[in-house]
Amino acid sequence: MRFQRNVTQISTKAYSTLAGLDAGKVKVSPSSLLKPLTASQDLVFGRTFTDHMITVDWNDRQGWLAPEIRPYENLSLAPSAIVFHYATECFEGMKAYKDKQGRIRLFRPDMNMARMQNSTSRICLPYVHMDDRWIPTERGYSLYLRPTMIGTQEALGVKSPTEAKLFVIGCPVGPYYKTGFAAIKLLATTEYVRAWPKGTGDAKIGANYASGLLPQRLAAQEGYQQNLWLFGEDHQLTEVGAMNVFILWQNDNDDLELITPPLDGSILPGVTCDSILQLARSWDEFKVSERTLTMPELRRAIHQGRVREVFGAGTACVVSPVKAIGYQGEDLPVPLDPTDPQAQAGPYTKRFYDAILDIQYGDVDSPWSVVS
Amino acid sequence: MRFQRNVTQISTKAYSTLAGLDAGKVKVSPSSLLKPLTASQDLVFGRTFTDHMITVDWNDRQGWLAPEIRPYENLSLAPSAIVFHYATECFEGMKAYKDKQGRIRLFRPDMNMARMQNSTSRICLPYVHMDDRWIPTERGYSLYLRPTMIGTQEALGVKSPTEAKLFVIGCPVGPYYKTGFAAIKLLATTEYVRAWPKGTGDAKIGANYASGLLPQRLAAQEGYQQNLWLFGEDHQLTEVGAMNVFILWQNDNDDLELITPPLDGSILPGVTCDSILQLARSWDEFKVSERTLTMPELRRAIHQGRVREVFGAGTACVVSPVKAIGYQGEDLPVPLDPTDPQAQAGPYTKRFYDAILDIQYGDVDSPWSVVS
Repeated sequence: MRFQRNVTQISTKAYSTLAGLDAGKVKVSPSSLLKPLTASQDLVFGRTFTDHMITVDWNDRQGWLAPEIRPYENLSLAPSAIVFHYATECFEGMKAYKDKQGRIRLFRPDMNMARMQNSTSRICLPYVHMDDRWIPTERGYSLYLRPTMIGTQEALGVKSPTEAKLFVIGCPVGPYYKTGFAAIKLLATTEYVRAWPKGTGDAKIGANYASGLLPQRLAAQEGYQQNLWLFGEDHQLTEVGAMNVFILWQNDNDDLELITPPLDGSILPGVTCDSILQLARSWDEFKVSERTLTMPELRRAIHQGRVREVFGAGTACVVSPVKAIGYQGEDLPVPLDPTDPQAQAGPYTKRFYDAILDIQYGDVDSPWSVVS
Repeated sequence: MRFQRNVTQISTKAYSTLAGLDAGKVKVSPSSLLKPLTASQDLVFGRTFTDHMITVDWNDRQGWLAPEIRPYENLSLAPSAIVFHYATECFEGMKAYKDKQGRIRLFRPDMNMARMQNSTSRICLPYVHMDDRWIPTERGYSLYLRPTMIGTQEALGVKSPTEAKLFVIGCPVGPYYKTGFAAIKLLATTEYVRAWPKGTGDAKIGANYASGLLPQRLAAQEGYQQNLWLFGEDHQLTEVGAMNVFILWQNDNDDLELITPPLDGSILPGVTCDSILQLARSWDEFKVSERTLTMPELRRAIHQGRVREVFGAGTACVVSPVKAIGYQGEDLPVPLDPTDPQAQAGPYTKRFYDAILDIQYGDVDSPWSVVS
């Protein structure tokens, strides 16, 4: 329900034309030259790419043309292609894992594909098998898949795409942060706003990311790894970097409560976010709320020692524990694990991480992990 | 002053690295095959491109490499190039005109280049001469120039560009709307918001255009050519389509007043907008205000017969007269020329148009028209 509502919003807002892709006829052109693999420990997020990619072209006269799996190579596009001018682009991020039996597993691919409103999940299957050797086997490592769609018609008039290209590329990845599973510091920014009601914050489109690059660089200059995006005069928490945000605290009624902001149209409906909510509700150990929380409320709770854990959640890093939040000139400390001074994550953050990885690698049976 | 303030905002927000481009060494590779020209009357905005383009590459290690004027041709980019994923792209729109002596004239190129914070104005000069034959001579026709910069590093991590490509392409154009200088109908949209405080509405980046494509298509389905973008609970007028908006009315004090919304950070600082404000102030025939106006105020004034003219302003169409505004289910009629039932523009709208074209084609001397 929760997700469905947003899928509809996204599909209406971004590319409603993706449905109806006929994946029946996939043309396969294997690469004649396979690149040397990169050692897992040398992987930098999003820098190493596999041997193949999928491309599918679309235009408003013929619809979807035949998908093709072919060697990873440059795209040749006119400099007037609309994607270079008006940011007509959307994407997804998902991962393929290898289980102990060597089988390839995708984590909840239906949600990513529903979000992109298309049927590439079917054409992904032969693709991940062709690039099988690029899927690392170590825990924490996987093949990151990036379905992307760009508008391609050669026309500078400001109008909707009449031609588009969908492609899927894959890159073997380890932990998103070079520091590994290490707690990060957030800067709660009051100078920049990520998204707005009746805007596009709930769609996975390039436009939502471009505007965050400068604030992120400025935060980094002050020693913070990510921005904590706020909204409104009352400084409501919305997202952290390019992730959803979670707060576990003793609330004003002294109940233990896990909070994430509600999907009100300006929050991206994350697959990891949804997974954490479902896991937390199945554990039934604390209250789980999708509701608004403001920085002044959070600051007061931190001062009173009522905040247990804060973390970001997203496909790239799964969970990202937070150890401090800079807000209005003050660094608010967030506890990690009180029983272990060396720990880089709180016990529940770690538990969510382990539970999700157990599913992703097939160590625990779950319909979320789809053997391919 | 007015512009300077916003230039600073833009450069900080978008690509502060463009400064320092060394235009001294331009490599020139003429095209060996010149395409047949398109007859001016057959031109569709942004569809026909000239024989050459400029490209300049940049990276964070070497800075700007040598600019090159070379044949117009496809760009070859990795599918992982950041521009396809995070909308790292900005652009400008400007025009080259031919005067009666056959000289090439650029209209206020310093403003476009200040907005893009770079020095391509100097490298534009040899370029427009190489594509001289593509500059139409008929009044209303010109060569539209599109400087564009895209992030190009091959990396999926969400971070600022470390490599970029700047290119300038040109296309001969006639009137932006196929209907020519014809009054348009606007739909004042209350469902979508173009920009917001502390966002990026004042920067000419692709991200601001992607989000407007769907609302524009929906407006077109209802018979409106463009959206009138509103902001806030009180429905303040902000922009129209991809143009600045102007209202000429008898205000509440019965003064004749020309209004455009103030550059508060969410309005694009338009070159044509600035030109109209300067012309209007030099004429000194009515009050000229950069201030907020709401739709309820405008509706009341239209009902009371106090609105004289409404028009959009931008480089592509210069001015675009408005004949009606759809708002909350009501079509509010806007007068054109009360003395001429056939007229497609009000007398002041037409006068602004003629005054600017006289300058652009060099019929009237002005420092705004730079002979190249």
